[in-house]
Amino acid sequence: MSRVTAELLTIGDEILYGQIVDTNSQWMSVALSEAGIQVIRKTTVGDVESEILKALAEAESRVDIVLITGGLGPTSDDLTKPCLVKHFNCELKINDEALAEVTAFFKSRGRELTEINRQQAALPTCCEKITNKIGTAPGMWFERNETVMVSMPGVPHEMKLMMKDLIVPKLKLRFITPTIHHQVIRTVGIGESFLADKISSWENSLPPHIKLAYLPSLGDVKLRLTAIGESREELIREVDSLVDRLIPLAGEYIFGYGEDPLEMVIGNLLREQKLTLSIAESCTGGYVSHLITSIPGSSEYFLGSLIPYAYEIKMRQLGVKPETLEQYGAVSEPTIIEMANLVRAKFSTDIGVATSGIAGPGGATPEKPVGTVWIAYSDKHHTVTKKLQLSTDRSINIRLATTAVLNLIRLSLPKEVLTHS
Amino acid sequence: MSRVTAELLTIGDEILYGQIVDTNSQWMSVALSEAGIQVIRKTTVGDVESEILKALAEAESRVDIVLITGGLGPTSDDLTKPCLVKHFNCELKINDEALAEVTAFFKSRGRELTEINRQQAALPTCCEKITNKIGTAPGMWFERNETVMVSMPGVPHEMKLMMKDLIVPKLKLRFITPTIHHQVIRTVGIGESFLADKISSWENSLPPHIKLAYLPSLGDVKLRLTAIGESREELIREVDSLVDRLIPLAGEYIFGYGEDPLEMVIGNLLREQKLTLSIAESCTGGYVSHLITSIPGSSEYFLGSLIPYAYEIKMRQLGVKPETLEQYGAVSEPTIIEMANLVRAKFSTDIGVATSGIAGPGGATPEKPVGTVWIAYSDKHHTVTKKLQLSTDRSINIRLATTAVLNLIRLSLPKEVLTHS
Repeated sequence: MSRVTAELLTIGDEILYGQIVDTNSQWMSVALSEAGIQVIRKTTVGDVESEILKALAEAESRVDIVLITGGLGPTSDDLTKPCLVKHFNCELKINDEALAEVTAFFKSRGRELTEINRQQAALPTCCEKITNKIGTAPGMWFERNETVMVSMPGVPHEMKLMMKDLIVPKLKLRFITPTIHHQVIRTVGIGESFLADKISSWENSLPPHIKLAYLPSLGDVKLRLTAIGESREELIREVDSLVDRLIPLAGEYIFGYGEDPLEMVIGNLLREQKLTLSIAESCTGGYVSHLITSIPGSSEYFLGSLIPYAYEIKMRQLGVKPETLEQYGAVSEPTIIEMANLVRAKFSTDIGVATSGIAGPGGATPEKPVGTVWIAYSDKHHTVTKKLQLSTDRSINIRLATTAVLNLIRLSLPKEVLTHS
Repeated sequence: MSRVTAELLTIGDEILYGQIVDTNSQWMSVALSEAGIQVIRKTTVGDVESEILKALAEAESRVDIVLITGGLGPTSDDLTKPCLVKHFNCELKINDEALAEVTAFFKSRGRELTEINRQQAALPTCCEKITNKIGTAPGMWFERNETVMVSMPGVPHEMKLMMKDLIVPKLKLRFITPTIHHQVIRTVGIGESFLADKISSWENSLPPHIKLAYLPSLGDVKLRLTAIGESREELIREVDSLVDRLIPLAGEYIFGYGEDPLEMVIGNLLREQKLTLSIAESCTGGYVSHLITSIPGSSEYFLGSLIPYAYEIKMRQLGVKPETLEQYGAVSEPTIIEMANLVRAKFSTDIGVATSGIAGPGGATPEKPVGTVWIAYSDKHHTVTKKLQLSTDRSINIRLATTAVLNLIRLSLPKEVLTHS
């Protein structure tokens, strides 16, 4: 089977000038890759006719599929449509179906169709209209000399819906693409190179049609297996058996599969076990609570937090003993143990966790440099503490300490066997 | 003066496959635009020799400056250096100065130089080395037929330091670029289209050499003025006088100038006025505290927070009267007033603020749909409340409510005249 190649062409001054980050093209890359289509180039040009025409001609000569975003708005600096008309040497005409759709769109919002909006229903006569269910600019599908060219709006949620519902399925009908199966394995608490060391024998045993990618971010590493073949069932079976062989090597670091973040996995564990959580967070300043409460339904297991940022609040509001603070300091194991136990008792929750550290840049001492952080987990069975030595960067320290606390909750909870789906 | 054009060429499979978002090229666009250099194209190709060679030749024929990132690592899939050697038809040789630098780099970290790392000091003989002060892969500067081509590592902080300290200054010496002066005006509390309406007379009066861009994000809008001319002093004078004329039209929405976020502006106001702050945040779940504490030195004015997520924590830990909660509910003006006053009293701070609302998706009632949020500010002089009706999206509601609270602090503090620098 020969490969099917694609180029992503993004049109818009705002990207060339750096006014926005182009996140569309990343999303499209992933969607195409999952469909067995290989992106071999990305190009961005500005709102300039000559540049757009050159880019269209080059892309058409290079790949099987050209996906264009941007430049479809109703104002005069949106040039994609006139350029496509020129490139394909056809005419611009009001498309009756598109006009009915854009009229209905405005009517549903109680607004009148203006002449400018009416022009959004004008399409090149040589294209097939692609319906935009949630916006006013339709997509356009062109075919010439074995190349497919599709133009979409640049508004991310319009583009994504159009791609998912209409364009990717149509491309899969039009081209013979290999079957691709992805499995993402989520790990936390181990750096990329240490993880690579641990699983090198497994990695070296991967068959040629299954590729592994390490996708590290702050505090966690995703492993992505991409299997290419013909039978979906066969690929799923192969990947599942590889994951089974990975677990003995790295199981303790694996917190889940797919896209769910650590705070959602923890939320699910707490909900399943009907346990409640409270947090005393000092150096993380609210970030742990923010991640926990970013999950819909978190009020089922999360009762609340105290952020005792100042020394006197640690004593007066949380109840840490003055002698503990005086003798050991706020960033110490005795203090963090008291914090976790106190918040659990005050908030009457099953679990209490706590953070205290020197996020930086100020506040360091010779014994406690910037990046020194203590974290603790407490439930009725046990209290677990951990000392972290992080970086010199405040924002990185807040994020890494937060990931470490979430992972401490995961590891300290009554054990559950995680199974992959 | 003729314009100076640039193309950004990014090399790496991880970008084509969508494994990472290319944020480097946005940063580079801004840096070049500020230097008076116009980016007219961005291109990304994968780690494939033929694709890289084609892209190098095309870019060289198109622009004055080609800036290349990525593909400089020590492993075999990093092809940028061998491709540049081929493209410029020269040789790869160990550069003594680069070798001394990379050796010193490893020594300073207590590590031995391996053969693989030694190869990072091998450079094309036809290039000028650009020192990498914080990494092991040097940059490379090539010139041929009036075009400058520069290759840099893809690691963001290495690329940025190299660009700022060495490459942009060198490009400004090599090319005659116009003088560009940017001024960013930060607004909050007004949507893009309403702001545009308010300032349309001012916008229409801008001279042709001064352009305005609206850069909206969740809850705030940046206005960026870009002035192009010859004399920096003249441009600064013109832009300052435009900003002075903008203030009567939109002054109440302007919270600052440049890149400092709202939480930093508020931190500065609190520090200058020697005021302390505490927060009772319910529906925002810690995000207000997180933004406040993301600013270095925030412990000077921020003493702490209570996150009374559960109903009973609002009563037991914060002290909201049961009859208030029963009569009006947790999301109500009487409750939010008590919350702000109580946290201020408990934490003994000058200012107390509070949030309570239905972030969604659950928890709504017919009278209080998802997105209903109450916020309050309290100091010894007055208590100010505000009801917000936000969106149906949990994450957007948390962010918008947080921006609204920060803005409420700004507007309710003893007045200070903000001057632009």
